[in-house]
Amino acid sequence: MPRTGRRPGRPDTRGEIVAAAARCFAEAGYDATSIRHVAADAGVDPALVRRFFGGKDELFTEVAQAVIGPGSAVAAVAQGPADQAGERLLRYFLGLLGDVHRPGPLLGLIRSAVTSQHAADVLRTFLAERVLGGIAGALQADQGALRSALVSSQLVGIAVTRYATRLAPLTAATDDELVGWIAPVLQYYLTGDHIAR
Amino acid sequence: MPRTGRRPGRPDTRGEIVAAAARCFAEAGYDATSIRHVAADAGVDPALVRRFFGGKDELFTEVAQAVIGPGSAVAAVAQGPADQAGERLLRYFLGLLGDVHRPGPLLGLIRSAVTSQHAADVLRTFLAERVLGGIAGALQADQGALRSALVSSQLVGIAVTRYATRLAPLTAATDDELVGWIAPVLQYYLTGDHIAR
Repeated sequence: MPRTGRRPGRPDTRGEIVAAAARCFAEAGYDATSIRHVAADAGVDPALVRRFFGGKDELFTEVAQAVIGPGSAVAAVAQGPADQAGERLLRYFLGLLGDVHRPGPLLGLIRSAVTSQHAADVLRTFLAERVLGGIAGALQADQGALRSALVSSQLVGIAVTRYATRLAPLTAATDDELVGWIAPVLQYYLTGDHIAR
Repeated sequence: MPRTGRRPGRPDTRGEIVAAAARCFAEAGYDATSIRHVAADAGVDPALVRRFFGGKDELFTEVAQAVIGPGSAVAAVAQGPADQAGERLLRYFLGLLGDVHRPGPLLGLIRSAVTSQHAADVLRTFLAERVLGGIAGALQADQGALRSALVSSQLVGIAVTRYATRLAPLTAATDDELVGWIAPVLQYYLTGDHIAR
């Protein structure tokens, strides 16, 4: 029978700090969030946060790691029929964004990167090293780095216009409808022919 | 011979206030900007700003109007061969964004909308009433509202990933290269066949 009334100590502390950091970055933005705020939100000592993660940049990278799940994103592209990679990646990403009226922590991460040049630098490094490189490597196509960056431009654009700006036609559309429209675009970026000019 | 050493009074005051507001929104964000800040930046009395524009929402809408140029955006879609509307719209939008290392005021507008729900509401109304509706009306295609919203998702995504997050493959690509990749996507959203699921 599971114990109740007490949260377990050690095993979840790391995860609780990351969850607290995700909340702080989403609510206050990157620049206004400090290790001290995160520690207070998680109910732990700031020194513990520093011991686990180092500084704020590393903590932001941990949040990105937990929220985006680079391994799963790359697997969505790499595993299964190649001509459905765009749809798999889009469905994975829409799942990360969550309910259109109550978006999950991914939107907070994007907000931080849009408003803080430093957060953008940290997120860019994370995306380049752990996500886009993996997707590019999974593709059997030239210009993999540019292709995966174009994919992320469309995904980030959906995050901003559907979940932040909330354009009505996008919030009214179902995930399946959006997949019908956008999956072919991601597929084109991933494996389609480049139209040279 | 033009007068020098003195800026003209009346004729440019309105434009100078809008330019000052664009700077304030871009630098401080929507929520932290007040009519008082804008007036100080423009070197005019706050009462004059209120007389010209009313409140902060209307001022933000004026900035959006000046920065985006809805008439030119709609004309880019409506005027010229229909099968090149995507390319014309993309080139117009890249022109608005400006130099990749020194982006213009459009990025500040998007930043405001990403961080302030209220700015997002104002921008959404502006886009819906003055831009997307016009583009939808210019299209000879069903689902015009959804199509123009999908177009804006890709355009906003390029703004964020190339100019704010600065993903290297996108900053390294020339405008012409990006047009080669992305114009067909905008064309598909504008006039292509919907792939039903």
